[in-house]
Amino acid sequence: MRNGSWSVYLSGEIHSDWREQIAAGIEKAGLPVELSAPVTDHAASDDAGTGTLGEETDSFWGDHKGAGVNAIRTQTLIRDADVVVVRFGDKYRQWNAAFDAGYAAALGKPIVTLHDDDLDHALKEVDRGALATARNSDQVVDVLRYVIEGKLPG
Amino acid sequence: MRNGSWSVYLSGEIHSDWREQIAAGIEKAGLPVELSAPVTDHAASDDAGTGTLGEETDSFWGDHKGAGVNAIRTQTLIRDADVVVVRFGDKYRQWNAAFDAGYAAALGKPIVTLHDDDLDHALKEVDRGALATARNSDQVVDVLRYVIEGKLPG
Amino acid sequence: MRNGSWSVYLSGEIHSDWREQIAAGIEKAGLPVELSAPVTDHAASDDAGTGTLGEETDSFWGDHKGAGVNAIRTQTLIRDADVVVVRFGDKYRQWNAAFDAGYAAALGKPIVTLHDDDLDHALKEVDRGALATARNSDQVVDVLRYVIEGKLPG
Amino acid sequence: MRNGSWSVYLSGEIHSDWREQIAAGIEKAGLPVELSAPVTDHAASDDAGTGTLGEETDSFWGDHKGAGVNAIRTQTLIRDADVVVVRFGDKYRQWNAAFDAGYAAALGKPIVTLHDDDLDHALKEVDRGALATARNSDQVVDVLRYVIEGKLPG
Amino acid sequence: MRNGSWSVYLSGEIHSDWREQIAAGIEKAGLPVELSAPVTDHAASDDAGTGTLGEETDSFWGDHKGAGVNAIRTQTLIRDADVVVVRFGDKYRQWNAAFDAGYAAALGKPIVTLHDDDLDHALKEVDRGALATARNSDQVVDVLRYVIEGKLPG
Amino acid sequence: MRNGSWSVYLSGEIHSDWREQIAAGIEKAGLPVELSAPVTDHAASDDAGTGTLGEETDSFWGDHKGAGVNAIRTQTLIRDADVVVVRFGDKYRQWNAAFDAGYAAALGKPIVTLHDDDLDHALKEVDRGALATARNSDQVVDVLRYVIEGKLPG
Amino acid sequence: MRNGSWSVYLSGEIHSDWREQIAAGIEKAGLPVELSAPVTDHAASDDAGTGTLGEETDSFWGDHKGAGVNAIRTQTLIRDADVVVVRFGDKYRQWNAAFDAGYAAALGKPIVTLHDDDLDHALKEVDRGALATARNSDQVVDVLRYVIEGKLPG
Amino acid sequence: MRNGSWSVYLSGEIHSDWREQIAAGIEKAGLPVELSAPVTDHAASDDAGTGTLGEETDSFWGDHKGAGVNAIRTQTLIRDADVVVVRFGDKYRQWNAAFDAGYAAALGKPIVTLHDDDLDHALKEVDRGALATARNSDQVVDVLRYVIEGKLPG
Repeated sequence: MRNGSWSVYLSGEIHSDWREQIAAGIEKAGLPVELSAPVTDHAASDDAGTGTLGEETDSFWGDHKGAGVNAIRTQTLIRDADVVVVRFGDKYRQWNAAFDAGYAAALGKPIVTLHDDDLDHALKEVDRGALATARNSDQVVDVLRYVIEGKLPG
Repeated sequence: MRNGSWSVYLSGEIHSDWREQIAAGIEKAGLPVELSAPVTDHAASDDAGTGTLGEETDSFWGDHKGAGVNAIRTQTLIRDADVVVVRFGDKYRQWNAAFDAGYAAALGKPIVTLHDDDLDHALKEVDRGALATARNSDQVVDVLRYVIEGKLPG
Repeated sequence: MRNGSWSVYLSGEIHSDWREQIAAGIEKAGLPVELSAPVTDHAASDDAGTGTLGEETDSFWGDHKGAGVNAIRTQTLIRDADVVVVRFGDKYRQWNAAFDAGYAAALGKPIVTLHDDDLDHALKEVDRGALATARNSDQVVDVLRYVIEGKLPG
Repeated sequence: MRNGSWSVYLSGEIHSDWREQIAAGIEKAGLPVELSAPVTDHAASDDAGTGTLGEETDSFWGDHKGAGVNAIRTQTLIRDADVVVVRFGDKYRQWNAAFDAGYAAALGKPIVTLHDDDLDHALKEVDRGALATARNSDQVVDVLRYVIEGKLPG
Repeated sequence: MRNGSWSVYLSGEIHSDWREQIAAGIEKAGLPVELSAPVTDHAASDDAGTGTLGEETDSFWGDHKGAGVNAIRTQTLIRDADVVVVRFGDKYRQWNAAFDAGYAAALGKPIVTLHDDDLDHALKEVDRGALATARNSDQVVDVLRYVIEGKLPG
Repeated sequence: MRNGSWSVYLSGEIHSDWREQIAAGIEKAGLPVELSAPVTDHAASDDAGTGTLGEETDSFWGDHKGAGVNAIRTQTLIRDADVVVVRFGDKYRQWNAAFDAGYAAALGKPIVTLHDDDLDHALKEVDRGALATARNSDQVVDVLRYVIEGKLPG
Repeated sequence: MRNGSWSVYLSGEIHSDWREQIAAGIEKAGLPVELSAPVTDHAASDDAGTGTLGEETDSFWGDHKGAGVNAIRTQTLIRDADVVVVRFGDKYRQWNAAFDAGYAAALGKPIVTLHDDDLDHALKEVDRGALATARNSDQVVDVLRYVIEGKLPG
Repeated sequence: MRNGSWSVYLSGEIHSDWREQIAAGIEKAGLPVELSAPVTDHAASDDAGTGTLGEETDSFWGDHKGAGVNAIRTQTLIRDADVVVVRFGDKYRQWNAAFDAGYAAALGKPIVTLHDDDLDHALKEVDRGALATARNSDQVVDVLRYVIEGKLPG
């Protein structure tokens, strides 16, 4: 925490508006939270390495380069976070979200996972590493309100 | 410390006004202290999980869910604290207070315990993990005044 | 682990034979486990300080002295353990057991709690810090057998 | 390392014989390696919690219980490993493998990933957290032989 | 990060204006970055020990004394940094730059190396410890802009 | 560092005005330094425990109690410091100063020792754990000026 | 612990036979303890640097060199120890012993101090960092016997 | 240490026989030391990645791949070492040796540097991070003999 404000990192899915929902909920609730996230512009994220450090002919190394540049951001923000929220959607493999969760878990960061129940069995190890599993953005906001202000919804 | 202010986490008993006494004493003494605490509304605390993330039919898992949500708060605040005060009263088993003390001890946090002398023998391991054992809230304030300003009472 | 053997520390209640039951179950199952524990002779444990380093007139400091000597043992064994089992019985306050659990949790040790379900609500924070909650010694052995050999009972 | 032997943990896919291939390669090469792995019996792994600690009516908590018991094993073995190999196959979501990789990365463990190149883009963050990416079990053995004995294949 | 600002430590070569280029680029881009660096006045740096703590007759100990005083600065700034940029030029042996890189790597700091490609082979271990390798100061600014704001150049 | 200011803890001798000299030198030099120190009022320091938490009949435990309360302050300030200066004078045994130095060394804090050369042989282990050894307060200020601003005196 | 044996490092005074007394007591008691210590040959210890790495004209650097070589031994043995015993005698300043105690304390090692009661006040900070204070070698053996075997003397 | 044997990692120069000299000296002295080293076959080391994981068309990535595989070995051995010796010769840039030294320093490993005095000024930061600087292999053996057995040469 810095000056009474909680740092919350929002990891995972970048193809839905769950981060915006959480941001809106936090603003509405007036919670002292600073949100951070990976770069969520998919195209920019894929070009993070080649767009800054030069093109690669081999796609493996182009990806490697990009993942390195993205990791400068994500590792720093996760280390800096008080709470890490990890969202899994129904598309893509999202191994980076699970990697972030494992990384955060080993650092002792409190984790909140966010996903539908049809992913429960596949995510059981990740959920076990978390302190809460939410089903929607409202529940994440409810958890943060309780954690920060001690108030339950309703 | 942040900006010269000491973070003091007040763990333990939630059925007496010891936190208010310490807060009043700190204010009267004009000490640069930011107090933090677990959620002390017993009913809200018990519903921390089910009230934010949905009901449970099995009470064990309802408790588990709530303890997870509460731990997001307590672990973060303990890690963020400069000093951890742990209060044991004469009611309830208060294992969470002793758990907090062990957690803080392993993190190397300075601990002050606060309890009556009839609990001395039962709390000897917890007291040994602390740097001070106080008998009342005034003594906690006296210790904090000395620690921060180097002044003895009276 | 040392030479393929798992170190398991058995913390908590010293007035029932749960440690012997676990030891017998481990031997019967042929598991490569080295058990360790605090000193379980209650009288010796209470005299750990005064019996080795000299008498005290003030019982608080006599307890303090004893708790220090006992902590040399318990801290070392917990740090050395692969798994920490913490037992809560129906007598005494057992704050040292909860303290051990918090200490082990902050060190990242996998914890197994062992207690009856009438203590569930009071132990919810401790159970949340554990990776398993068992109801009897057989279940602890079953968990260890699975963890070490990957075999389920029956 | 213990007594000159390297501990190598094999995380991930449990539906092909890649672990057996690596074990055979290591034996043929005569490398001083102690392999370890999660429980690879899928049915046993799914029942790890309910089969040892009792049935659950809610599948989420049944999975949670099982993931806790499995984590006692996996966390201990990863912490104990000198090198962590993480295998991704073409089936299932394998979030636990990515979680293990993130966990190992935060602990500073050297990681070798093992997967086909059609998974390269999806695994770019995980591969970036690794020190080597192999395409088959032989390459993993070749890497271990080089790492331990300094010899290249052929 | 402090108040949303990223701390970036610029290690290495002190005989060209690469730090000024990066500072100018950051200012032009309006990035919230606080730059820090070792003392770059070569003469002052060589006299850091003897100029503050007294002359030495033996040059080894004069250097030792100066390196100690410089280390107070560099170790503190590296520990305080979010990102460490390490520059290798074409002159001098620059072992201190490589030492800084190793030091930062073991602390888990994200590293960006900056050097021409004719040094690639000699710097391969250092580059492997980094998350990005840039060829000029503009690329370092591009990486920082992406990392902080998620925007690619152009 | 907080907001560009260096935290410097001044450990050791409390019977001369070396702290005031350093404070004056820092003010004159206009350095962004926040100084901290143990309680330097000898009488208050000796009564730190008994004056806040109640009298003791046994002087060993009275000292023990006081040392605990003082440790809340000193451990917190040392952990919070960027640089630790440790002063040894010609009186008293000053084991607490050497203890602080060892404590700071194990935490990786940069240490500056301050003492006359007739103590050199007796302090050789402590000096070896430091990054600089100064002979007077002016030299400490010179070192801090160089470390923070890169400027040599004169 | 290695193979059930406790590593105990004996720091401090080198001009009396307290280490031999402890060794004899441990042998008589049949305790599984591996003792280690700094080099106790005073002349050899003083020449540790100059006798291995060449003479120095300046005694400060000669001492510095020797303290460095001795630190290779002492730091390694302290890090390797389960328990650290620190002895203070009535001669010399023994700042290295207090430094070792502070170093061990910050590493979380259980410490036993050993000294006469006329040093109590001067050693109060060091004793507060310890878990036991013994008055003679027999008491150290008694503490170790209790810690390892759970048996009180007599 | 394992079973009383010291692990010593020999980092740096691979084009002279300094490692063989140290090994011969240790054998002659009968010291309980287990030596380890990076792969010292220059050609094999350069092909560590491409020779195990497949060719690369881009030399940067070929080097990157090789450095990754070598790092699995070197990071593991450095973490496992009690003492790290770092040798700098008169050829090549040897940035990997300086990187190893920085890496070992941040891990708190005792370091011995080994080089001629004409490299003193260029290596002053690395030497400052070490506890001893030797001029030849015999001196390294003399230091190890003293550290392990407390005996000076001659």
